[in-house]
Amino acid sequence: MASNNGNKGGLTLDDAFSAIAWRDDKLVLLDQRLLPGRESYLELTTVSDTARAIADMVVRGAPAIGISAAYGAVLSLQQRLQAGKDWQQGFARDMAMLEQSRPTAINLRWAIQRMMALVQRSLAQGLNGSALVQAAVAEARSMHEDDIAANRKMAELGAALIDPCSGVLTHCNTGGLATGGIGTALGVIRMAHALGRLSRIFASETRPWLQGARLTAWELQKAHIDAQLIVEGASAALMRDGAIDWVIVGADRIAANGDVANKIGTYAHAVSAHHHKVRFMVVAPLSTIDWKTASGADIPIEQRASSEITRYQDKAVAPQGFRAWNPAFDVTPAALISAIVTEAGVVKHPDAKRMRDVLQKSPQ
Amino acid sequence: MASNNGNKGGLTLDDAFSAIAWRDDKLVLLDQRLLPGRESYLELTTVSDTARAIADMVVRGAPAIGISAAYGAVLSLQQRLQAGKDWQQGFARDMAMLEQSRPTAINLRWAIQRMMALVQRSLAQGLNGSALVQAAVAEARSMHEDDIAANRKMAELGAALIDPCSGVLTHCNTGGLATGGIGTALGVIRMAHALGRLSRIFASETRPWLQGARLTAWELQKAHIDAQLIVEGASAALMRDGAIDWVIVGADRIAANGDVANKIGTYAHAVSAHHHKVRFMVVAPLSTIDWKTASGADIPIEQRASSEITRYQDKAVAPQGFRAWNPAFDVTPAALISAIVTEAGVVKHPDAKRMRDVLQKSPQ
Repeated sequence: MASNNGNKGGLTLDDAFSAIAWRDDKLVLLDQRLLPGRESYLELTTVSDTARAIADMVVRGAPAIGISAAYGAVLSLQQRLQAGKDWQQGFARDMAMLEQSRPTAINLRWAIQRMMALVQRSLAQGLNGSALVQAAVAEARSMHEDDIAANRKMAELGAALIDPCSGVLTHCNTGGLATGGIGTALGVIRMAHALGRLSRIFASETRPWLQGARLTAWELQKAHIDAQLIVEGASAALMRDGAIDWVIVGADRIAANGDVANKIGTYAHAVSAHHHKVRFMVVAPLSTIDWKTASGADIPIEQRASSEITRYQDKAVAPQGFRAWNPAFDVTPAALISAIVTEAGVVKHPDAKRMRDVLQKSPQ
Repeated sequence: MASNNGNKGGLTLDDAFSAIAWRDDKLVLLDQRLLPGRESYLELTTVSDTARAIADMVVRGAPAIGISAAYGAVLSLQQRLQAGKDWQQGFARDMAMLEQSRPTAINLRWAIQRMMALVQRSLAQGLNGSALVQAAVAEARSMHEDDIAANRKMAELGAALIDPCSGVLTHCNTGGLATGGIGTALGVIRMAHALGRLSRIFASETRPWLQGARLTAWELQKAHIDAQLIVEGASAALMRDGAIDWVIVGADRIAANGDVANKIGTYAHAVSAHHHKVRFMVVAPLSTIDWKTASGADIPIEQRASSEITRYQDKAVAPQGFRAWNPAFDVTPAALISAIVTEAGVVKHPDAKRMRDVLQKSPQ
């Protein structure tokens, strides 16, 4: 069974939770909507339940969505093969439906295409019935394990950059809740912590959605890692106090020149880091790099509703009708980044040439 | 009657509200705890109600607290004189009680001492009964009007620094809710807006207490000034977009060398402003300058409870028991400040010498 503990030889990083698991022919998802208040798991037995769980954000984070969809494809296959007649058309319809659950998530489409290709390949090899389902389970597990391995590799490469007695600050949620494994930026922090290199760990709460407070703090507490929350506005003061050696963040999209789009607030941390000579690390799998986008200026930034800022759940925190400037992401220029860590290697002081030299051993 | 509109010749800046008013022998306070949801005024007729209103934060902001206390002293005088016998001892007890309502507010003590001195002076002049009350009302009104005039002067001096078509960003609440008049930083913004110099106005929400979202947005909406909220983390991205020419903030305490302690998040805005060559203005009355404190390093920074960050009202936003690093203030070094605006003049590029030269015409 695919496990979530990132344990593949060497240091063990046990998790007290698995955001995604395949157990007894069921997909088990941690319901992230209820965190940090309640840790509740949903057992899904149908592909339509899986699609609904993705749409409703039971599970979030691009890699986590992709892996969930792969297991959702297995659920469809189980159901359709049992029904018998015309199962292939039914499976294709399910996959189209599943793909619509979060239309913009690139990993979702990629995972579904990979599962459909596996089914075609298995049929060509003469597999059917339970053998076909077993092949699909193996494929989904393999995708899950690949993500775990990539997380693990990034964690090792990133942690190797961190000196003993360091202080770190992270932003948003990039851990086991957002990926299949121990996470990207949070994976580096967990590894560095396990290696005894961290004296201070801070997470910024990440307004307006509070992923830092709700999810990262929850993951750190589950892992028994002592850490503190800050409001975003406190990060510069914290750096001025000398508490931070590395800011460590994930990425939503990385341009070919190393510019990084990530959760709003990332760039502010980067500017403060630069001012205080604090190093800045971006941790993201190769799949995050968009080689077709030359620079951050070409990355479109989604503007979201004012109400995300002017309301908190059912409460108004600003006067009715007041507008907000609410971009979901910002762009941190490569010049402010000390290192981009991927499973294929580390690009220090990234620019277009170094990105290609280190990461495009086999160009796309 | 002391009015809140900052109208003393020249441009009128009408307010649709008075956070503090003296009307029909009563102190009328806008209940700021209910903003932005409800605009409700409390009529206070006793000094103990006034002390409770200050303690419970019906009214907040150092100048506003001082003015409220002065009117509270009038209420005490009315009551005690009516009771007759031993009224002076009763008045003294009331003043001691009032002073305890917010023990750290420097303006509170100053206002009470000024009212007690007025009573002594009036008695020495042979005033008593209603004539004594009238003298006290006049003194409280004079303090209120002095604050209105100081706000007005700062607004004019600050607005004069701002070029046409500018974009501004402010932090926390520094308007009519926090002062007796149109405010400090927000007064400058209102004046610059009235002069037609502002193309873009942004307020940062100001975590963890959301004074920007709850109070500044409310004041701007009441004044029919079009503006937008941002989360603190978005300020650097906003500056990178070229939207901001001036960051304009208040101050809780200014050291002799021009270092400024203000609401947490101020320093982060200052660092981002410096990085993007955006100018940074601090607006505060002379009473905010602590000449006995040489530099910001000597200003003690209050650390507040984790729960201010880990909870929002009755909701947990982080796991139970998670800690937060929660300083109430940060210090912005003078080197990052383009101008400190007071009612006695503007100190550009402040340092210890320029602070003295401009503001200490009559050193304390």
